[in-house]
Amino acid sequence: MSRIKKVAITGGTHGNELTGVHLLKHWREAPEEVSRTNFATELHLANPQANKANRRYIDQDLNRQFKIQDLNNPCLSGYEHSRAKVINTLLGPKENPRVDFIIDLHTTTANMGMTLIFNTDDPLVVGMAFYVQDKMPEATLFFDPVERLEDSFLTSTARFNGFLIEVGAVPQGLLRADVYQSTREATKHCLDYLELINQGESPVKPQVREGYRFIEKVKLPENEQGEITAMVHPNLQDQDYQPINPGDPLFMKLDGTTIPYQGKDKVYGAFINEAAYYDAHVGLSFMEKVEVSLKNDPAND
Amino acid sequence: MSRIKKVAITGGTHGNELTGVHLLKHWREAPEEVSRTNFATELHLANPQANKANRRYIDQDLNRQFKIQDLNNPCLSGYEHSRAKVINTLLGPKENPRVDFIIDLHTTTANMGMTLIFNTDDPLVVGMAFYVQDKMPEATLFFDPVERLEDSFLTSTARFNGFLIEVGAVPQGLLRADVYQSTREATKHCLDYLELINQGESPVKPQVREGYRFIEKVKLPENEQGEITAMVHPNLQDQDYQPINPGDPLFMKLDGTTIPYQGKDKVYGAFINEAAYYDAHVGLSFMEKVEVSLKNDPAND
Repeated sequence: MSRIKKVAITGGTHGNELTGVHLLKHWREAPEEVSRTNFATELHLANPQANKANRRYIDQDLNRQFKIQDLNNPCLSGYEHSRAKVINTLLGPKENPRVDFIIDLHTTTANMGMTLIFNTDDPLVVGMAFYVQDKMPEATLFFDPVERLEDSFLTSTARFNGFLIEVGAVPQGLLRADVYQSTREATKHCLDYLELINQGESPVKPQVREGYRFIEKVKLPENEQGEITAMVHPNLQDQDYQPINPGDPLFMKLDGTTIPYQGKDKVYGAFINEAAYYDAHVGLSFMEKVEVSLKNDPAND
Repeated sequence: MSRIKKVAITGGTHGNELTGVHLLKHWREAPEEVSRTNFATELHLANPQANKANRRYIDQDLNRQFKIQDLNNPCLSGYEHSRAKVINTLLGPKENPRVDFIIDLHTTTANMGMTLIFNTDDPLVVGMAFYVQDKMPEATLFFDPVERLEDSFLTSTARFNGFLIEVGAVPQGLLRADVYQSTREATKHCLDYLELINQGESPVKPQVREGYRFIEKVKLPENEQGEITAMVHPNLQDQDYQPINPGDPLFMKLDGTTIPYQGKDKVYGAFINEAAYYDAHVGLSFMEKVEVSLKNDPAND
């Protein structure tokens, strides 16, 4: 009997990330590409109004609205607050979800390549990350564990949680064919993996691999008026997942002078110069390198 | 006696092109960087509301509103229609401008590098393009002649017309340090050139150079519902100013198949995958290679 019965692929969770939006359009025309023998696949445009407006969101970031207490809070009434509740009704409810797994398609303006983001150490999910990485060795594992009910991501609505495919660099509001094709390929591998799991096969064995875990967001320097006074340093631009050592250039002020990293520990950058974080004046995320463990065979877990 | 008395540098004509906006902020703090001995330099944020909203425009593209008949048409009452009239009052009026020259700072999501856009064959302007190219040999000349009163660009408000510095690739809504610094450098050369001209020096000699002239905008394929069904082909992505020959891949459909260029003549691409043109479903511009002539010594013209 299949363990996974219903899989949802979501796109346009951020309305100006067009790759997922257009992959959904493609798969509606060619459903055989996302059909598998032992589960049903659904396609959902997550934030249609933001997509129509070609904006990340209308009122608030949809992909931060899925904590159980926020879903159950009737006072949160912005467009994305409401949209999260609708999606929770459609795919969840979070406490006892109808859908077993969600693959959510994202892009970034940062040079993060093929990044696989997952928030749980459940062997089913970690196994998927390892399986996709076996097929696409350029993929990076971005692991940030949160208890599912406390997880604010859309993917956490599903029974076994889910998986973000986050690809860059691509500007907001356009399609890059290379990004589109690699997102399409990674999604195929995710579905293949779930099909194998349902068949009781063991597509990946317990093992440990290298990944990156979020430490903190780093703000761009500001003046007293709250305006940014510096930008990501040219040496750091496009260097996602590369080490940042104490004293390395971090920002460049408007006059061209360098602000170095003043921390004591080596870190790694991610979401470096992500346009979506400019409204909050965030320049990048600091990450640490971690070991990601697949503790059990996901087929027998 | 100086021929050029007043120069305006404008930024944020498109509100989500942040390079010019932040260079203006820098130069307000460091005016000596744009001051020259024999003319006055003014700094103007062209579209503050669009910049605040982090959008290209509020109602319509500001950089298409400067034709004389549009400036004089009281029925055009959108935000940018109004803003163009205000700028015309501030820097013009177009028929007898107060300001002699405008340098307008732009960015593009296309991989166009340092592009110098000018709409007149006036030796003063062509000479500036050649001078900047002498200092920055990577710069490309983008020449699209229009009679000044019929020109829809902001730069055409000035007595001797002006010059767009257009740099990419950079996503909308963020700063890239390399783009910021090269825009800063090109602006410096423009100002140096005008200072030399005012001194009666001849910084460039009459000659002919290679440039590109706009032929037409090319739309992305659409279905009957008016949705795009293809994107820029991966072979064409980032290949601005490279030849496109009959039969070369032009677009990739959502299913991955190729649509070739079916014209008979070799063309060149520019603004390939410019996000700002997605609302009109424009994928790129076709350009032709042209000879750009500096007919007279600009210092003695």
